[in-house]
Amino acid sequence: MPGRNKMAAPVPSAAIIQPVPPEMAFRLLNHGPTVLVTTSCDDRTNVMAAAWNMPLDFNPPKIAIVIDKKTYTRELMEASGTFAINVPCRTQADIVVKVGASSGRELLGKRPGDKFAAFNLPSFAASQIEAPLLQGCVAWLECRIIPEPHMQQMYDLFIAEIIAAYADSRVFSNGRWHFDGYDDLRTLHHVSGGFFFTPGDALTTSPG
Amino acid sequence: MPGRNKMAAPVPSAAIIQPVPPEMAFRLLNHGPTVLVTTSCDDRTNVMAAAWNMPLDFNPPKIAIVIDKKTYTRELMEASGTFAINVPCRTQADIVVKVGASSGRELLGKRPGDKFAAFNLPSFAASQIEAPLLQGCVAWLECRIIPEPHMQQMYDLFIAEIIAAYADSRVFSNGRWHFDGYDDLRTLHHVSGGFFFTPGDALTTSPG
Repeated sequence: MPGRNKMAAPVPSAAIIQPVPPEMAFRLLNHGPTVLVTTSCDDRTNVMAAAWNMPLDFNPPKIAIVIDKKTYTRELMEASGTFAINVPCRTQADIVVKVGASSGRELLGKRPGDKFAAFNLPSFAASQIEAPLLQGCVAWLECRIIPEPHMQQMYDLFIAEIIAAYADSRVFSNGRWHFDGYDDLRTLHHVSGGFFFTPGDALTTSPG
Repeated sequence: MPGRNKMAAPVPSAAIIQPVPPEMAFRLLNHGPTVLVTTSCDDRTNVMAAAWNMPLDFNPPKIAIVIDKKTYTRELMEASGTFAINVPCRTQADIVVKVGASSGRELLGKRPGDKFAAFNLPSFAASQIEAPLLQGCVAWLECRIIPEPHMQQMYDLFIAEIIAAYADSRVFSNGRWHFDGYDDLRTLHHVSGGFFFTPGDALTTSPG
């Protein structure tokens, strides 16, 4: 599946992007970052912002995420049964806002292409699913939906298993985020209206 | 219901703790803080830490939260149908770790009282529910469980409506967190093993 629907961008260096063991995957979302959801089905792709996500289980790792019924992302998610979570960083704040404020479905009506093309977002191939992964992010989770029709319909809530996970090893390794020296790669935590926090001081408590 | 099961602590100044309008309540959790869940049923109370929580709807506001089957908190939550989410701050990191590393059920077996007494945690009365609210936190959400037995059993996932919300107006007002000048009141974002981030730089993006 590499190539199709993907920008002609080089795959980032394997020395930087490292697999995250399944039992550590929850730690990519544990501190509450806003994420970008990427989807693909047949020749259609899309990307949207989603602040409402959380880990749901350790191993096999699962997540829960809220995806509104009216989104194009949801249409492609439900058609493919898969999606990717991309964890964006500080330098991508403008992208997150643009992607969150626009509809892939509306863009399609106005011009050919998709949000990746419209906003010039380079991507690379996922390992297990069709959805493209967004370059410049700091973590990626490839997800397969566990169908729960009642939750999807009633609460716009999707449950998914994380079937592969990766992180930029400059800021995540050995199951831990470490942003010191990489301010531009700090994760984004949306409050509202394009206003974000990035992680600041790290605290380590001693038990007892 | 004020008084019963509550520590004899004074209610913090109403000048600091302000109600949060229902449609703004999601913003208390939008940036991904770790929370403390408090519960009460009859003469039993408990408190536990929960990193896995997220907003689920705007108005009426709803949240989703993961509560393990083996916890005493879950027993009291299911018996009462209600619980409170308390958003702790930097000065409470040790409390979060202690509360997260201990079981209310085990404490009960060892000595009389509960975690509030064991860890000397002053609380005050909620407005709508039995669960005590923890002093020194920066936000409080009083929640009523929306029964979803399958999700509770299968994924330890609870859906609840936020029936009242409050925040410390020094750091949250007009629907926005603003921690400048109040470093001790910054929220806690758990990575793992007693390692937390606090919110750092705030970014405001301009649309377009």
